[in-house]
Amino acid sequence: MKKTVTLSLLVTGMAVFGQFKEDSIQFSKISSEILNNGKGYTELKDLTKNIGNRLSGSEAYEKSVKWAEQKLRDAGADKVWLQEVMIPVWVRGKESLQIKTADGQWKKLKMLSLGNSEGTGGKDVSGEIIMVKSLEEYDRLTESQVKDKIVFFNHPFNQSYAQTFIAYREAGAYRRSAAILTAKKGGKFAIIRSLSSAFDDVPHTGNMRYEDNISKVPAVTIGNTTADELEKLLKNKKVTAKLNSNCGMKGEKLSHSVIGEITGKKDQSVIVVGGHLDSWDVGEGAHDDGAGIVQSIEVLRTFKKLGIQNNHTIRAVCFANEENGTKGGKQYGKTARDSNEKHLFAIESDAGGFSPRGISLEMDDKNSTQIQSWVNLFLPYGVYNFDGKYSGSDIAPLHEMGVPTAELVPDPQRYFDIHHTEEDTFEKVNRRELLLGSVVMTQLIYMIDKNW
Amino acid sequence: MKKTVTLSLLVTGMAVFGQFKEDSIQFSKISSEILNNGKGYTELKDLTKNIGNRLSGSEAYEKSVKWAEQKLRDAGADKVWLQEVMIPVWVRGKESLQIKTADGQWKKLKMLSLGNSEGTGGKDVSGEIIMVKSLEEYDRLTESQVKDKIVFFNHPFNQSYAQTFIAYREAGAYRRSAAILTAKKGGKFAIIRSLSSAFDDVPHTGNMRYEDNISKVPAVTIGNTTADELEKLLKNKKVTAKLNSNCGMKGEKLSHSVIGEITGKKDQSVIVVGGHLDSWDVGEGAHDDGAGIVQSIEVLRTFKKLGIQNNHTIRAVCFANEENGTKGGKQYGKTARDSNEKHLFAIESDAGGFSPRGISLEMDDKNSTQIQSWVNLFLPYGVYNFDGKYSGSDIAPLHEMGVPTAELVPDPQRYFDIHHTEEDTFEKVNRRELLLGSVVMTQLIYMIDKNW
Ligand SMILES: [Zn+2]
Ligand SMILES: [Zn+2]
Repeated sequence: MKKTVTLSLLVTGMAVFGQFKEDSIQFSKISSEILNNGKGYTELKDLTKNIGNRLSGSEAYEKSVKWAEQKLRDAGADKVWLQEVMIPVWVRGKESLQIKTADGQWKKLKMLSLGNSEGTGGKDVSGEIIMVKSLEEYDRLTESQVKDKIVFFNHPFNQSYAQTFIAYREAGAYRRSAAILTAKKGGKFAIIRSLSSAFDDVPHTGNMRYEDNISKVPAVTIGNTTADELEKLLKNKKVTAKLNSNCGMKGEKLSHSVIGEITGKKDQSVIVVGGHLDSWDVGEGAHDDGAGIVQSIEVLRTFKKLGIQNNHTIRAVCFANEENGTKGGKQYGKTARDSNEKHLFAIESDAGGFSPRGISLEMDDKNSTQIQSWVNLFLPYGVYNFDGKYSGSDIAPLHEMGVPTAELVPDPQRYFDIHHTEEDTFEKVNRRELLLGSVVMTQLIYMIDKNW
Repeated sequence: MKKTVTLSLLVTGMAVFGQFKEDSIQFSKISSEILNNGKGYTELKDLTKNIGNRLSGSEAYEKSVKWAEQKLRDAGADKVWLQEVMIPVWVRGKESLQIKTADGQWKKLKMLSLGNSEGTGGKDVSGEIIMVKSLEEYDRLTESQVKDKIVFFNHPFNQSYAQTFIAYREAGAYRRSAAILTAKKGGKFAIIRSLSSAFDDVPHTGNMRYEDNISKVPAVTIGNTTADELEKLLKNKKVTAKLNSNCGMKGEKLSHSVIGEITGKKDQSVIVVGGHLDSWDVGEGAHDDGAGIVQSIEVLRTFKKLGIQNNHTIRAVCFANEENGTKGGKQYGKTARDSNEKHLFAIESDAGGFSPRGISLEMDDKNSTQIQSWVNLFLPYGVYNFDGKYSGSDIAPLHEMGVPTAELVPDPQRYFDIHHTEEDTFEKVNRRELLLGSVVMTQLIYMIDKNW
């Protein structure tokens, strides 16, 4: 009896080892193919340099739709199509922020309106600046202290965290809620210190929110250096700010997400890999999220090139309008639900084209435990961290429908130096780091396609 | 009895957990201090922009000695001194490589002589180029096939490896041995394809070797694009190359390594953290190894600033002449042996100022197992990989004396794009990535100082 058990354990052990070896060889083939022949880097150059930034509603975004359609065909997708989606049209227009002290001259500040912010309708709006360092400090201010003032939310990005996304989420509360908070106490507009890990003067735009029945006051952002200077000035003097901006929401427009797939050989249940095709209207949207787009297209290309016979349908989705509405993701989820299309799994890459370190898993324990059991296959590629519990915002609607979702976790140190700025350019992307992200997503999808 | 055991296990368990919590708080203090107040980034800017590259024997190297001395004092070292060391003086001089086909004109190639290579004494040396792709292919050539020829070692850097250092070591064999191999079969000089992961035309210099009693023929290197073009040309035509170079070794010179330390409170046994102060003579020596220098100085600064009472002496060593002789490391080892100075541990940072991923451990199992047992303290800082078994070349002499040694393991994707080139500049270094390397070394030294 004992011998039999030992033997059967041995046989199981050998089968497990044989399986590991086979998967490990496939992982290596995927890595070699992409690191040697990957097209993602040159495609990202094309997207960033020949189209550039591509905010929802812009002509550039429409160009990028055609571009993605072509690239998915080039990658060898069996089917490529556009998915209709109504997207908001926000336009920056002219904008200028000036400050002055009682004894001084007006001085222009380097600034950006936050995305989705209304402007001043081309008129000057001015008032005295009051500064707060935290939401708690703002909460303590009375309405009469804020009335007709300009509120400067000067909360610094916390450099202490080794994981920058924690600092980003903390500081993000200010970007999202500053306008609402300011309006509630009768302030005229809000100035927000940028969510930036860099020691420079580059303002970082990004999404802000309004609430129904609360006045839509403008929200603008300034870089770290300007914020420091303003703070210093406010220590000794009253400072007046004057904003003039034509920014604003200009209705909606019909546009598209772009989808390509390789048909499943066994069934048509769908594995999604995606990123968002839109970007903010400054810089080139290289890391955010040109990277996720070219990485996702590369996954399809690699399956085709290596002739991997996928059981399930593998679909690359270039989502529309992540930055200021996530309408693409919402429409994709709705369409999947309406058409009763079974989704097996979805992964998004939207944290920059940096060296991958992990995969964040938003799914039940059974599924996440299985993926975590593959860690030794991933370790040679620098991927060790499966502890995150979130996934991308474009695939959140799929997650709400019960689909196991995930996000690629790249190294987070450089992202918030350049995120949503004029500095998010192709030059900031490294070829091997970008391609490795695609390697890891292809490897994961290979495993899920085979085992689920 | 059983109760007693359970209780005692519980007590031990709580003590272990209490210890973990205490260390974890200290890790966090170290990280916050360095990420918020670290001086390494601005010091690296000063070193690279105001001194620049600093090859052994150059005036710039001597400036960097004074610079490091001052920075160690600024960091609060209890003692700072220079350690005398004889270093080789290699000088690049003028250099030019041209090629031509029978029906063509002479055409200048972008090139660099390899470090330590002799030149042509200012005369033209020319001959027909023969190309090999591998050492095996070269081995098959007869002496008459190589005699009076120029050998082009066109071995490409293997992009397939996720771990670029494997590709670097493979390709490194060509850089180190090309001149010897060429001379042995009567060739006139060697052209080596650069050890480069970039798809560009930047030549990468680096150390090469000669052997006694074998003619010292020159060895030069060309970037990837030029190498590809030359390969294409050689497919159809005979190509002649002409080298004219004044490079060469110009004897030796007395110079210095720079050392600073915080005296041990319990004993004077030494923990070393270091990098090399010299660099190649192109670019700014920012990642290689200005990064290791400022990171090491930061370790001392952080111990002083946080008032950590170190049991043992903590010493930052800025080694002379790593690149073309490792005389600084050798002299340091010799001095330690001659003076019977006990060394507890040594770590070097010499793989670039990128986001840290691990610590490579060259020591016996007992010590490495203990360090590996601290992995959960390091994981929040992105450090998970303790599998490497090597350490830096400057501390190899210490290792040979039985000292446990280690090396910081940063992300390896970008290093060989710029290593030993004009592109290794301050702009390629990210503040947080650089400082995190110092965080991790300070944390490790804190643990070793406390537990060893
Ligand atoms: Zn994004
Ligand atoms: Zn080095």
